[in-house]
Amino acid sequence: MIKNEDHIIEFIKSNIKTTSKDVLKSIGDDCAVIRVDRLRSFVVTTDTSLLGPHFTKDYSPYEIGYKCLATNLSDIAAMGCKPLYALMAITLPNLKSSWIKFFYKGIKELTDEFNMAIIGGDINKGPLSISIQIIGINKHKILYRGGAKINDEIYVSGELGSARAALMTKTNKKYINEYRILKKSLHMPKPRIDLGIDLSKFATSCIDISDGIAKDIKNIIKESKCGANIHIDHIPYNKKLNKVIQKNKLYECIIGGGEDYELCFTANINDKNKIEKLSKKHNIIITKIGTITKQNINYYQYGKKIKLSLKGFDHFS
Amino acid sequence: MIKNEDHIIEFIKSNIKTTSKDVLKSIGDDCAVIRVDRLRSFVVTTDTSLLGPHFTKDYSPYEIGYKCLATNLSDIAAMGCKPLYALMAITLPNLKSSWIKFFYKGIKELTDEFNMAIIGGDINKGPLSISIQIIGINKHKILYRGGAKINDEIYVSGELGSARAALMTKTNKKYINEYRILKKSLHMPKPRIDLGIDLSKFATSCIDISDGIAKDIKNIIKESKCGANIHIDHIPYNKKLNKVIQKNKLYECIIGGGEDYELCFTANINDKNKIEKLSKKHNIIITKIGTITKQNINYYQYGKKIKLSLKGFDHFS
Repeated sequence: MIKNEDHIIEFIKSNIKTTSKDVLKSIGDDCAVIRVDRLRSFVVTTDTSLLGPHFTKDYSPYEIGYKCLATNLSDIAAMGCKPLYALMAITLPNLKSSWIKFFYKGIKELTDEFNMAIIGGDINKGPLSISIQIIGINKHKILYRGGAKINDEIYVSGELGSARAALMTKTNKKYINEYRILKKSLHMPKPRIDLGIDLSKFATSCIDISDGIAKDIKNIIKESKCGANIHIDHIPYNKKLNKVIQKNKLYECIIGGGEDYELCFTANINDKNKIEKLSKKHNIIITKIGTITKQNINYYQYGKKIKLSLKGFDHFS
Repeated sequence: MIKNEDHIIEFIKSNIKTTSKDVLKSIGDDCAVIRVDRLRSFVVTTDTSLLGPHFTKDYSPYEIGYKCLATNLSDIAAMGCKPLYALMAITLPNLKSSWIKFFYKGIKELTDEFNMAIIGGDINKGPLSISIQIIGINKHKILYRGGAKINDEIYVSGELGSARAALMTKTNKKYINEYRILKKSLHMPKPRIDLGIDLSKFATSCIDISDGIAKDIKNIIKESKCGANIHIDHIPYNKKLNKVIQKNKLYECIIGGGEDYELCFTANINDKNKIEKLSKKHNIIITKIGTITKQNINYYQYGKKIKLSLKGFDHFS
């Protein structure tokens, strides 16, 4: 029985050809990887953004355009690569000039920032939906989920939980000022392209935090065939969360909340200095939150092992 | 004011970066073309298929899977290239095991036929929508819309109009037997990959007939900066159309009706024999329907010039 996203992926993998010569990575990472020649590989990714799960009616068209592309770019960042080209298949319920202009203004913000080109697409009439495909290229090596080694340290960029906290605060008028700040993480996440490229020189594995770190770290562990000790009290978060989120919901935001689009990566303990330098260079806090172990994921809070039952996001469960 | 698909494309082209080094063709052909090295280029295309414009409730999930991929492959065929990899972003209203199994059976039919691999994708919950991206590669040269030369001959593969005729006959119980046959063209169009690859050795331009030949031929003319004389009575069609379609609607089917996914191409007059050979090799009728001229499109019927005001399909007009 096919009951969730993972079942669909398993079904595809066991019934349809999913790899061939020159496919260095097929389904199962942030991007697929196609070898071009001895030094170059293309990374390719696709994501659909929909009204409901990915943006809501209070998003401006500018924010919708920005976020649709940003979340796709985040997959390129997680591979440590540079985006080159995008194709956009957009489905619109109707044609409103101003909507379209502001939507593409959001797109342009990022195509300009990363000097990438929109080289094709498709336009249809129907329920609002934006599917973007990005093709990127490696600058150094490619970062996979499956490269973490025992005793590697586990890091995250930025602060986690703000996107979920924004969602949870949205309708509470008491916190309207805090919401305005947290909303930026939800509506306009920053794809960590430049950081990813620099990390690709030495990091051992990487994933972007789209479904909540509890779920995303599991993917690193699974693909790297190892375990992890995570110190949840080390995970950085915006201190506004202490005000707007009930204490018993705080870790649901930080660990279970998706859409932060920060990077979670692993690196050898000897690369600590490099990470500090990158943090300064990119002006992004980078925090050690745990260590890679032989097997199992254990969570710790203030040094004590705790049980955690957060699953992360699945569209069908 | 942005009023139709073409306006959106113009808006993108004049506001956003749409090309860069190694992009041999950006927006404006069946695929974008990215140079890989001296001999190899990747062609990339994306298309969204939706309930309503692309398939209806009477399609089986098998037919939906098949058609979604077939129509994308048709863009690769029009470039004279071989498909290698696909990414599929699917949005489903719910998870039904049997639906998913038959949908992917339709996909597998074509991935098997062309030995291509599904290397990634995205799964979401929402109104049924399938966005597929295909990456293909040239075997010989790449066929563009913009290569037709004056005095080249204009050809089409297969028969035109059956897909539209099926749509028009669907609800008429009198023609249920004819509908069953015509339906195959509408629900399960054959992507002309192998023909396209062979044509890429000598044809001068090519497009797939997705929006109706009246609109599609305009794209060849526009990109090739030339004109055409088209003999509409030479365009081949399934003779069942004479029975099921009113005489005054016949050419609306054949010339204005889209979704045939045959190839329309041009070739030098000296390549007539090659085309006859390809027709036999692939067991596909290939018919000369006109000639490339210096400018303007003129339509002829039984040797007499006629006026034609068919526009072809636009999702927003």
